[in-house]
Amino acid sequence: MTIEEVIEHKRDKKVLTREEIHFFIKGYVADEIKDYQASALLMAIYINGMDKQEIADLTEEMRLSGDVWHLDDIPGLIVDKHSTGGVGDKVSLILGPMIASCGAKLAKMSGRGLGHTGGTLDKMESIPGMNIYEDETQFKRQINEIGMAIIGQNEHLDPADKKLYALRDVTGTVGSIPLIASSIMSKKLASGADCILLDVKYGSGAFMKTIDDAKLLAQTMVDIGKSLKKDVRAEVTDMDQPLGCAVGNNLEIKEVIQTLHGNGPKDLNEICLSSGALLLQMAKIYPNLEDGRAVLIENIKNGRAFEKFKEFVKAQNGDVSYIDNPSKFKMAKYVIDVKSKYKGTIKKIDALAIGLGSMHLGGGREKMDDVIDYSAGIVLNKKIGDHVEKGETLCRLYTDHSDYKEVYDEVLDAFMVSPNKVELEKSITKLLIE
Amino acid sequence: MTIEEVIEHKRDKKVLTREEIHFFIKGYVADEIKDYQASALLMAIYINGMDKQEIADLTEEMRLSGDVWHLDDIPGLIVDKHSTGGVGDKVSLILGPMIASCGAKLAKMSGRGLGHTGGTLDKMESIPGMNIYEDETQFKRQINEIGMAIIGQNEHLDPADKKLYALRDVTGTVGSIPLIASSIMSKKLASGADCILLDVKYGSGAFMKTIDDAKLLAQTMVDIGKSLKKDVRAEVTDMDQPLGCAVGNNLEIKEVIQTLHGNGPKDLNEICLSSGALLLQMAKIYPNLEDGRAVLIENIKNGRAFEKFKEFVKAQNGDVSYIDNPSKFKMAKYVIDVKSKYKGTIKKIDALAIGLGSMHLGGGREKMDDVIDYSAGIVLNKKIGDHVEKGETLCRLYTDHSDYKEVYDEVLDAFMVSPNKVELEKSITKLLIE
Repeated sequence: MTIEEVIEHKRDKKVLTREEIHFFIKGYVADEIKDYQASALLMAIYINGMDKQEIADLTEEMRLSGDVWHLDDIPGLIVDKHSTGGVGDKVSLILGPMIASCGAKLAKMSGRGLGHTGGTLDKMESIPGMNIYEDETQFKRQINEIGMAIIGQNEHLDPADKKLYALRDVTGTVGSIPLIASSIMSKKLASGADCILLDVKYGSGAFMKTIDDAKLLAQTMVDIGKSLKKDVRAEVTDMDQPLGCAVGNNLEIKEVIQTLHGNGPKDLNEICLSSGALLLQMAKIYPNLEDGRAVLIENIKNGRAFEKFKEFVKAQNGDVSYIDNPSKFKMAKYVIDVKSKYKGTIKKIDALAIGLGSMHLGGGREKMDDVIDYSAGIVLNKKIGDHVEKGETLCRLYTDHSDYKEVYDEVLDAFMVSPNKVELEKSITKLLIE
Repeated sequence: MTIEEVIEHKRDKKVLTREEIHFFIKGYVADEIKDYQASALLMAIYINGMDKQEIADLTEEMRLSGDVWHLDDIPGLIVDKHSTGGVGDKVSLILGPMIASCGAKLAKMSGRGLGHTGGTLDKMESIPGMNIYEDETQFKRQINEIGMAIIGQNEHLDPADKKLYALRDVTGTVGSIPLIASSIMSKKLASGADCILLDVKYGSGAFMKTIDDAKLLAQTMVDIGKSLKKDVRAEVTDMDQPLGCAVGNNLEIKEVIQTLHGNGPKDLNEICLSSGALLLQMAKIYPNLEDGRAVLIENIKNGRAFEKFKEFVKAQNGDVSYIDNPSKFKMAKYVIDVKSKYKGTIKKIDALAIGLGSMHLGGGREKMDDVIDYSAGIVLNKKIGDHVEKGETLCRLYTDHSDYKEVYDEVLDAFMVSPNKVELEKSITKLLIE
């Protein structure tokens, strides 16, 4: 077998065999197959697609391309949760403690933010002292002891994905469903959880722009789970406005704390409850969704979820005094109210513009080596469906930059105010694919 | 503009603009665009194709990617001739002296052989002393003085093609009509001729396996000529059997000499006459094909074509005594008669098998840095339509290798002998596209 033959097969719309996919992944990770050959194959996959079996085979070969962590010696079913990323998405940090306080075990590897989307790791690191690197032993011990761990993607896991992702980024082959699905799933599967809940977002602030693309990606990943005999389910949710109110790292941690105290924004609270109930069902702790939901609500009220969050922060060396007293978090030098020019109802909030605004204020990265200001970002005072008076505050900008004028205008433009009443769509779980 | 955008446009079946193609070629030659980006774009072109304007733009940008030779200061129209390559194709070396003896001027850059196909340069170098490197000044002076020059592809011309060709070879993107056509035409146009006659071969021994593919390639190249206002015409001819009888370097030179003496194989002689008449028409020397053909026949008879060949060999430092006395050429150690097992009529001779046989006997290269034995090869005693007795010689193998048994069997298998009479198809020019 030669790589040229494999490329030619996909180029000519043939179905690749498991052996061909193995040959490609193994050779590419070993640098025997060159980047220019891999990119030709990726483009052929992008244009000609892959069937279910090919996608499952590609996922499995990528999963096996490096170390694989085994969590089997932890009692019970281990769950994992992954969102395709959005603006203001701090769900894992709330959901994790919520379900762990109910006896579930969450094992999650996460990533950093880039462009308009934030990353769970950056949000965690805005808590002073917080450690995001653990080896397999530490990871398992923590999950065993407190029921959850969220760490950075281990570099020895899924090296194929790391190489392929970097290559796709510069060769116009990012937006391919088979390649996105296998990239996400191979990483998730290599880290060893038994059940995986996916949150596939769509809308201006999401990677998938339409609900149809999001459904297709969700179905593709659920199918991979079926092929590989793993319990994988997916929620398809919108990202037509930021999730919750806070966008920016320590601003979001404060919202995490609020929500764990029972005072979070309605949309954020709801998605944590519905995803949480699902995860408790998948973990076979509360087979009935209503029961799980009730316990989750109870554990917010009685403070167990909040206490679990503190245990998690402590276990990863974070300074818990910040969690007890969020006013300790660094505050931005400038806090600017963005005021509405119109009276009416908020019809739309462009999540992409809010995400980019937060990035430009210092809260995100344009390039991977940019340094983040954890105190920078945006907090929404108004969400879709809210009434606003002329001159009333739509949101607040938090930044150390004095030249925020341009961002102010962009963020103002992100709010669409309608003189008419707005029909509020159900903005939480649109669809569950299992 | 970024290369990712250009790749995405072609990936999404958009038509690339001249500016985008310029950006790609310029950046690629300057190493600013990487091989892995170029190969993704090549694959997108392979699968999604290019329209006439894109192909013309690509050709023109490749042509302009390095030096461009200008032959305008040579009086008269300068012609060039290119064959897509086959087995036993020594036409240029006969045709050149034939038309130059009639006052035409041939300016040709040629290539080396690889795999089953031979290269004009290798055939030339089997004449001791023959020089194939000339600069622009030497090339023009020789054309001016004797009416023809055939040299190696100058490395400063069309560097884009050199890089792209090497990349296509290892990325499954060789067999794309827009890429093949632009590769051939950009090189031809960079070397400065006014009129180009193309010979697009099809069949087992050719690059294009079917007549339809050959027609499409021929039409595409003629269209490039139209777009760029050059007189480009194409003949589509078969390569269902080797052209002429000799395959292998000095064996072919001996056949060139024979043919210039008027004693060449019928098919080879005919294609030289028909292509020659066309070139004389394109050069506006004999607008009427019949007139040109008559003069060509006359110049074979009166020896002027042969004398022109000697002038050409002498101009490029070759030892003319070999041309006058071909028995001086190195003779292979072993000459083996391949004998027919059957009585009947030759129905087919697999040109690919004969080409590979010649290569295995030492007459060709498997890899680009293999060394050629100029005396090795195969000479056919029988061609399609010929009668053969059982035990009669079909062809002769020439080699210095004593282990020729495997090649013998393969070459024997290349001949299909039928007990019935064979309907001889017209095996010369099938189609003229202009």
